[in-house]
Amino acid sequence: MSRESDDPKIPAPLSDDLKDTLAAALIEDEDEDLEDLALGEDYALTPEFVAMVVDAADRADAERLRELLDALHPADVADLMGFLSPDYREAVLAHANPESLAEILSELDTEIREDVLAAVAPATLAKVLGELDSDDAADVVDDLEADMRAQVLAAMPEVERVAIETSLAYQDETAGRLMQREVVAAPQFWTVGQTIDHVRKDGEELPELFFDIYVVDPSFRPVGAVPVSLLLRSRRDTPLAQIMEPVTEIAVDLDQEEVAYIFDKYHLISAPVVERGGRLVGQITVDDIVGVIHEESEEDILALAGVSDAGRNAGVVEMIRSRLPWLMVNTLTASLAASVIGAFQDEIEKLVVLAVLYPIVASLGGNAGTQSLAVAVRALANRELSAINAMRTIARELSAGLLNGVALASVTGAVLWLMFRDVGLSFVFGAALVINLVVAALAGALVPLLLDRVGRDPAVSSTVFVSFVTDFTGFFAFLGLAALILL
Amino acid sequence: MSRESDDPKIPAPLSDDLKDTLAAALIEDEDEDLEDLALGEDYALTPEFVAMVVDAADRADAERLRELLDALHPADVADLMGFLSPDYREAVLAHANPESLAEILSELDTEIREDVLAAVAPATLAKVLGELDSDDAADVVDDLEADMRAQVLAAMPEVERVAIETSLAYQDETAGRLMQREVVAAPQFWTVGQTIDHVRKDGEELPELFFDIYVVDPSFRPVGAVPVSLLLRSRRDTPLAQIMEPVTEIAVDLDQEEVAYIFDKYHLISAPVVERGGRLVGQITVDDIVGVIHEESEEDILALAGVSDAGRNAGVVEMIRSRLPWLMVNTLTASLAASVIGAFQDEIEKLVVLAVLYPIVASLGGNAGTQSLAVAVRALANRELSAINAMRTIARELSAGLLNGVALASVTGAVLWLMFRDVGLSFVFGAALVINLVVAALAGALVPLLLDRVGRDPAVSSTVFVSFVTDFTGFFAFLGLAALILL
Repeated sequence: MSRESDDPKIPAPLSDDLKDTLAAALIEDEDEDLEDLALGEDYALTPEFVAMVVDAADRADAERLRELLDALHPADVADLMGFLSPDYREAVLAHANPESLAEILSELDTEIREDVLAAVAPATLAKVLGELDSDDAADVVDDLEADMRAQVLAAMPEVERVAIETSLAYQDETAGRLMQREVVAAPQFWTVGQTIDHVRKDGEELPELFFDIYVVDPSFRPVGAVPVSLLLRSRRDTPLAQIMEPVTEIAVDLDQEEVAYIFDKYHLISAPVVERGGRLVGQITVDDIVGVIHEESEEDILALAGVSDAGRNAGVVEMIRSRLPWLMVNTLTASLAASVIGAFQDEIEKLVVLAVLYPIVASLGGNAGTQSLAVAVRALANRELSAINAMRTIARELSAGLLNGVALASVTGAVLWLMFRDVGLSFVFGAALVINLVVAALAGALVPLLLDRVGRDPAVSSTVFVSFVTDFTGFFAFLGLAALILL
Repeated sequence: MSRESDDPKIPAPLSDDLKDTLAAALIEDEDEDLEDLALGEDYALTPEFVAMVVDAADRADAERLRELLDALHPADVADLMGFLSPDYREAVLAHANPESLAEILSELDTEIREDVLAAVAPATLAKVLGELDSDDAADVVDDLEADMRAQVLAAMPEVERVAIETSLAYQDETAGRLMQREVVAAPQFWTVGQTIDHVRKDGEELPELFFDIYVVDPSFRPVGAVPVSLLLRSRRDTPLAQIMEPVTEIAVDLDQEEVAYIFDKYHLISAPVVERGGRLVGQITVDDIVGVIHEESEEDILALAGVSDAGRNAGVVEMIRSRLPWLMVNTLTASLAASVIGAFQDEIEKLVVLAVLYPIVASLGGNAGTQSLAVAVRALANRELSAINAMRTIARELSAGLLNGVALASVTGAVLWLMFRDVGLSFVFGAALVINLVVAALAGALVPLLLDRVGRDPAVSSTVFVSFVTDFTGFFAFLGLAALILL
């Protein structure tokens, strides 16, 4: 990225050889420049580069398009597609070279991929998919329409087709779908030398990249792993059994969130996947897990905000579909909570300042509840909150809620007294605030714990529940106390 | 995990050898059982196991404690510490074997680590830290009190001390702090064979695990990388220059969030870190990045909920410190928004049903704003939202807001009409809802975009801002329209 393009001063008479070399260097410089131009300081595509692509597509300048695409990593081409309209996508991708196309396809977002795939011939696609590891290929095939899928699979070699079909047979978001079937396995009694020879000889069938060699027993059950770097530095006559390290096996039907948790906790680079009997059936590598961790925490953010993932390129219809249902639920709960206010209409008519104050009590309760909720959801995801410390956590939340409530009540009570010189009003407001903050702390911690206990995702639907509780409590505590004390 | 403990039926007369073997097998079985008992189905520590540890600590049963600790991975011991009180922590950790202690320390949460470190002798600590990679060791040293730190560093061998001091000289949360100084580098002109011999011979100075060999030019600038698995499968006489792949260099002062983005985007397993001149100074491996990705998305969840991270073992005081400031800010904004209501007291006195309805308008606006906000914050973090498509994104948000508003307004307007038979009231409520949902969509997308543009974290403080806007708009639009139309 930071190599300077050193302005080459060319001496007068040049040999033909030297001329070629210099010409090549100049072309390389141009490439280098395009690469520098493509990505900004934040490693995102620059608007200038996207404009250049659009311009070249408008002029149908095939050579320029190829040049521009060649300057990009497949992941950046996939990003580029996200910034283009469907017409441009097709026009641009037509110029990607076949080797990159496989990578680009596997990097694309699902909704764009569906579009793009519809425009590729089945035979081309079958060939392109052969370049990918079985998990990535299965991912792409999964996005194909049924008849297109049949055609593509039919055009693939037997071995690849079976690998993809097996992968697709596992449930979505499980270890089986994440894993690649290509692994390097070696029997316990092999030496380092035998293993290295095997890798050199049978390279074709092995994964392109691998980080661990799994040592298996005669029933193909993993009994240990040897990191490639350890293999490399050990003497050829060392038995694998002597240098192997314990492995953490992943059950093939394990949820991907659990898999990600295990990788994160034990700092794994790769792990063997086993079927029910313990037989090795594939491996998961950490680069797939990075994506899962990312996805799962995004799901939590969105779930807490009450929106299901519509994808970056969702149209307005999908956006509405991902948001309106929660807004409808919220209309119901908000109305239910507000109906409490209806019960106190007489009091509000008598003392209309109440109408200004109860939204504040409800709002602060809502905020405090959201805080407890976010902390609890995060602790549950990290397995930091469980039966062992649930009671202690709730007790701490209650104390913090109480003390925060008292602090806020003192400040706001004093301000209200300065404004209205009415001790009763200050007291009612403060007391309602304390009650609501304690309830908020309790609800914020309890709701996700209970959802988790009954096997539900603690992030989904907890916000709407907690804010109903804090709205209701805020209105009821404040207006109820006001009715008792002030009127 | 799933190996059955096969009830060994022992035949009558046994040779001493066989007896020993069986005894060993029985001990191993016991270990196996403890391991099975330690972790639940979700790979979290079970309450039963924690109770066993507490019980052994109460009885000061050193042997049992050692046995229990040996059954755990260091990461699980670190988790265990999170479930114990400080006294128990010390009692238990005293029985960890020295090799695991280093790992355990590096896995511990900062606040617990500070506690634990205070109880370890500097000389012991210096020795323990030698077992860790330079980045992990620096992390631990960073948590030491100043005088303790000086003592520990003084007790370390020169090389290790310098490595740690260099690491600590880089800013927190940058590539420099994440990287380990130990790398495998090879000059361009070496062959595969020479590289393998170097790794075998100079193993001591190299990182314990490595995934890529960096090919460097004479000024030690990386020009390519060879994955270890590729090295292993290539012929000994192949020049590295022929098989090396392009590398993505990481600048030593790059923010860790950017580093994580690059690893995620390009599916990197390791990457070379370079200083300003391009010289290789260390490497970052993906296992460190998994933690960062996790951390960064958690920070977003917490920031959106208005709570700074207090850590899992925060006391009540830290909890309050992490939450009260935002609640105070919220008290201000909520009061400011509610003051709008104050301007319409006369109207409310005349038509008290208004008092029931404006909290609903405000609440739905707040929810819609939160939805847009979460989507925008996530898109910004993924570099999916930038100058290129900001206008398009905002336009889509506005359309979705408008249509969601119309949908909600129709339903609620109809219900209100059924309840009050007042077309004016239905219209005012519906119109205010549409206005607030459009404003919510705009604020939810614009606020994080603007924060990002001025170089601030788009997740921090945006929620309080957006909910102020939607509260204010909800109250003002509904009561204003009511004053104009109904009274």
